[in-house]
Amino acid sequence: SAPLALIAGPCQLESRQHAFDMAGALKELAGRLGIGLVYKTSFDKANRTSLGGTRGAGLEKALPVFDDLRKEFSLPVLTDIHNEEQCGIVAPHVDVLQIPAFLSRQTDLLIAAARTGRIVNVKKGQFLAPWDMKNVVAKLTESGNANVLVTERGASFGYNTLVSDMRALPIMAEIGAPVIFDATHSVQQPGGQGNSSGGERRFVETLARAAVAVGVAGVFIETHQDPDNAPSDGPNMVPLDKLPALLERLIALDRVAKA
Amino acid sequence: SAPLALIAGPCQLESRQHAFDMAGALKELAGRLGIGLVYKTSFDKANRTSLGGTRGAGLEKALPVFDDLRKEFSLPVLTDIHNEEQCGIVAPHVDVLQIPAFLSRQTDLLIAAARTGRIVNVKKGQFLAPWDMKNVVAKLTESGNANVLVTERGASFGYNTLVSDMRALPIMAEIGAPVIFDATHSVQQPGGQGNSSGGERRFVETLARAAVAVGVAGVFIETHQDPDNAPSDGPNMVPLDKLPALLERLIALDRVAKA
Amino acid sequence: SAPLALIAGPCQLESRQHAFDMAGALKELAGRLGIGLVYKTSFDKANRTSLGGTRGAGLEKALPVFDDLRKEFSLPVLTDIHNEEQCGIVAPHVDVLQIPAFLSRQTDLLIAAARTGRIVNVKKGQFLAPWDMKNVVAKLTESGNANVLVTERGASFGYNTLVSDMRALPIMAEIGAPVIFDATHSVQQPGGQGNSSGGERRFVETLARAAVAVGVAGVFIETHQDPDNAPSDGPNMVPLDKLPALLERLIALDRVAKA
Amino acid sequence: SAPLALIAGPCQLESRQHAFDMAGALKELAGRLGIGLVYKTSFDKANRTSLGGTRGAGLEKALPVFDDLRKEFSLPVLTDIHNEEQCGIVAPHVDVLQIPAFLSRQTDLLIAAARTGRIVNVKKGQFLAPWDMKNVVAKLTESGNANVLVTERGASFGYNTLVSDMRALPIMAEIGAPVIFDATHSVQQPGGQGNSSGGERRFVETLARAAVAVGVAGVFIETHQDPDNAPSDGPNMVPLDKLPALLERLIALDRVAKA
Repeated sequence: SAPLALIAGPCQLESRQHAFDMAGALKELAGRLGIGLVYKTSFDKANRTSLGGTRGAGLEKALPVFDDLRKEFSLPVLTDIHNEEQCGIVAPHVDVLQIPAFLSRQTDLLIAAARTGRIVNVKKGQFLAPWDMKNVVAKLTESGNANVLVTERGASFGYNTLVSDMRALPIMAEIGAPVIFDATHSVQQPGGQGNSSGGERRFVETLARAAVAVGVAGVFIETHQDPDNAPSDGPNMVPLDKLPALLERLIALDRVAKA
Repeated sequence: SAPLALIAGPCQLESRQHAFDMAGALKELAGRLGIGLVYKTSFDKANRTSLGGTRGAGLEKALPVFDDLRKEFSLPVLTDIHNEEQCGIVAPHVDVLQIPAFLSRQTDLLIAAARTGRIVNVKKGQFLAPWDMKNVVAKLTESGNANVLVTERGASFGYNTLVSDMRALPIMAEIGAPVIFDATHSVQQPGGQGNSSGGERRFVETLARAAVAVGVAGVFIETHQDPDNAPSDGPNMVPLDKLPALLERLIALDRVAKA
Repeated sequence: SAPLALIAGPCQLESRQHAFDMAGALKELAGRLGIGLVYKTSFDKANRTSLGGTRGAGLEKALPVFDDLRKEFSLPVLTDIHNEEQCGIVAPHVDVLQIPAFLSRQTDLLIAAARTGRIVNVKKGQFLAPWDMKNVVAKLTESGNANVLVTERGASFGYNTLVSDMRALPIMAEIGAPVIFDATHSVQQPGGQGNSSGGERRFVETLARAAVAVGVAGVFIETHQDPDNAPSDGPNMVPLDKLPALLERLIALDRVAKA
Repeated sequence: SAPLALIAGPCQLESRQHAFDMAGALKELAGRLGIGLVYKTSFDKANRTSLGGTRGAGLEKALPVFDDLRKEFSLPVLTDIHNEEQCGIVAPHVDVLQIPAFLSRQTDLLIAAARTGRIVNVKKGQFLAPWDMKNVVAKLTESGNANVLVTERGASFGYNTLVSDMRALPIMAEIGAPVIFDATHSVQQPGGQGNSSGGERRFVETLARAAVAVGVAGVFIETHQDPDNAPSDGPNMVPLDKLPALLERLIALDRVAKA
């Protein structure tokens, strides 16, 4: 198997400068550690817990930044899309289109994403069993796109809690698409702060270690230079300065897992 | 409290004739039993388990049938919508727009539905706690629409299984919107048949009895003259000829519950 | 089906006087409402969350009180037992031996209880599916005792939470033993207060209404004249003065359910 | 932290010869790999799914075999006990008394085990949250025994399914007792075969890898030379000849995890 890859970036595209700072720091780190990097950023948070949640820069402002990030850093860019229309608009500006977990059963969105020809990363719905992803992946491949990634990000476990079932990783691997483990959304507590989602950042490393030891193609980690003041997902993002030590450990585990 | 109302109809709009047959039979039954009726039908099944699942008549064919049903039977019509664009197109032809459970956190869809001024029935996501619906309802009311219904249809419980937590009914009632219990989707086994969802029709009455005894504004029951040959949701729809006895029992329980 | 029966009493045997007061009040109430009554009380709370929890009067003090309750009030008495040895000792002093939910898979305890010839009420483990109770009941009946009751008291749902799946009632009824719904333990939050279990008394009526409307042989309700000052299970017991209105509603629902 | 230790052996004590064969093979393997070994075996399976399940050699036959195993192989022996009385009887013949998961809330059993002075390994109930184990451990330490191990073996997740929440490992480690991961019971499907428990042996390595990478004091693995013909737990035991490769991988992961 190929060595561990990294999908990382801040939850939201906050500004051109912030994106450049984050992408630069992550590219330098990935280069030093010798791992592949996809830069993740969102132009819109379409399913915030409440109306008052900050939604992001918006499509118009984001697309030129995506272009510049790819040019400046030679980095593949991943972003999530939320309806069919966005797929065609966004595709020319990114390398990977991501289907949010809540939308993983929306047939038209999957077809539209597939038809762009871009790599599609589909997150497993919190309400799905790992074997249910076979049908989700088939909606993409039967639409003519074999470049599919599947991402584990936790399953509903009682109220306001997710659990990461590590058995899901080999089960999804059997489908044939590379499996990514999303270590920062897996520690979310959906709706857990009343009008926003909580999270337990201290378990990001726990779950990432576990997933990498089981064997995954990559890890997805949202990071920020100052998570507690980030506009979204603060409780679960990893501080940028903690990322090097975390990744070094994960790379070492990956070597053993794939030996 | 007002007496129990009924939202009923087949899962899909199959044809004009089928819709007229079903609506006529349901109107006659509701009249005889003295209960309010909203006719439910879907023009598109947008989240079938697999690509091969029948999706329904489509928007263009469905809207004139909705118009005719309302004219012919003086019945309010409810249908579900799946993206912002559909809201404005569909609203003039129906009385109630329904937000599917998987989409209950999609802010733009909620806002677009609210802005039509139609009654909005939002189903609780299988991944949400009952108290999380407060934020969902607020997205609608803060968009200027106070005509909101909330529907319980089960919560994720392990893999491929839903459980109906009856405590959800009084918790959601505190939000202020009338609470509907969806008795036929609550017995679904999501993804339980490999490439389609299963269901256990024999528990529809169990769960409907329970919910009505707790106290709800209405029950939502999908019905069909021949469920085993219906294009979708067959395993959980109630045969039309079993509906009268079921409703008579529910009405009697409702009287005791609201005495 | 026979009309709804009631198993009720305080969580613990606190004192002879308290037992007489409670039994007297409950007998008067059951007589007035015309329903069967089994008096429930525990001589030992063997699985308190922490060592500091009050454990009850103990076996030696309790048995003579059980005798006197039966003589004085002509009431059948139910108590829970926790090991094989207790079965034979306790059986002559009570009418029903109860197997606690945590112990519902302990073969020797089930056999010992069955062999006393007393009625055995076995609570479904929080970790069991309703169909698993078939094997539990078979351990009792194959040990020569057909007088078995099965009691639903909630299933584990995430951490520190139980959910009552109303489908469990008809599933367990198919086993052949009368089904009881334990409305006060079903609202427990196991371990939910750190070193004791919490509970939400306000949902006792919700769940009891639901279960009775589905159809059960009886309801199990722990009650106390002053739950907030009771030595155990205070958060979920029903105040004695709220019991008449609750039971009247349940009896009315039972009549409809069994009509 | 100390390097990974191993608790291993067959589910049941089948015969003196079988025990000697297994203990000999495991001791040789542990010696070769340089890891600590505790030999696990049960004299009684007290909570089989149904009465027909084989229960084991029984106390009388087992104790002399325990003595001989300890003498012959200089191996610490672990066995599980099911009531207070057994604690004192079994303690002189073993090094570790194990509290079964279903019994992890039984106060008297915990006290009796603690008072023997032996190491006590308590398995987390399938119905408990990881933080609930603080109270369980306190029952042991407040009874005067600080030699406590806690074992993760899965949490109830819907019906007939367990999920291993890897966050439980660091949460339990904070209690202060060494944490063991039971990799073979965690893949059980309780009651999943109708009248016996199923299991998915193929996930033992998945979960063991994950737990070791997170960081545990030891792993618990039931093993047998021919699991498919073993008298209990066959579906989840690891074939003896697959154990060396599994352990080599776990030891390598442990080194990285604790570096």
